[in-house]
Amino acid sequence: MDLSAYFAGFVDGEGCFTVSFSPRSKLLIGWEVRPSFSVSQNADRSEVLLLMRQQFGCGSIRPDRSDKTLKYEVRCLDDLVERIIPFFEGHPLLSSKQRDFERFARVCKLVRNQAHRTELGLREIVSLAMAMNPSGKRKFALEAIFPQELKL
Amino acid sequence: MDLSAYFAGFVDGEGCFTVSFSPRSKLLIGWEVRPSFSVSQNADRSEVLLLMRQQFGCGSIRPDRSDKTLKYEVRCLDDLVERIIPFFEGHPLLSSKQRDFERFARVCKLVRNQAHRTELGLREIVSLAMAMNPSGKRKFALEAIFPQELKL
Repeated sequence: MDLSAYFAGFVDGEGCFTVSFSPRSKLLIGWEVRPSFSVSQNADRSEVLLLMRQQFGCGSIRPDRSDKTLKYEVRCLDDLVERIIPFFEGHPLLSSKQRDFERFARVCKLVRNQAHRTELGLREIVSLAMAMNPSGKRKFALEAIFPQELKL
Repeated sequence: MDLSAYFAGFVDGEGCFTVSFSPRSKLLIGWEVRPSFSVSQNADRSEVLLLMRQQFGCGSIRPDRSDKTLKYEVRCLDDLVERIIPFFEGHPLLSSKQRDFERFARVCKLVRNQAHRTELGLREIVSLAMAMNPSGKRKFALEAIFPQELKL
């Protein structure tokens, strides 16, 4: 069986591509941009997470504090750009989650090119991130990051 | 990309193999055994369900009354035995859900051989079903089906 296709299907169902923002007064623009790829499972179904870490050759598995699940997560930008993104470019998701992946890939590449250190770049990143995972919750709304913005 | 492996991975994350029991006074043993294979998704992510129905060539997609999801489901015993079970025998799940699948496959084959119409056969089916999906809820406990049983 093609394990890569298997993992692509598993991630289409259970995986999550997110970009979060944290205020950092010491940074030039004042915000840290943190892309993350993660897959959560009940602790009694951890086998696939272990195989996935092996397949991708990066990331970590740890208990999720918010519930009784285990989370496989990749946050290292180099690993995201060099391992995770090329994998899903080669194995596109079949659901609408593919659009989230494409925005996520664009954000990671912008951050790697230091675009988040300019206001214009950060604006593009924030707007891509806000269009992702519409059903999820955001800690900071657009107007918190750009207080001069009108509420959309 | 190997679509079969993709669907196997998707089902490992999102799929469900269940066996439910309904009291039917007109049946010989008094219980109807209903195996079901299903995959639920938010309605805005229905693409994979449509592709899956196409791949398996059976089953139906309909709104789940309990929430705002769509459910792809196969309940026809012939389709389960001739299409769904052979597919997952050829593409084993990598998580512990594989054990549920194996019990499910055994139940379907027992029912197809009319084993559920004898008390001995029904006992084996119930005991396989009770060992599946331990985190799920059951409408009827073992002692409802076999009232003479001691509580386990």
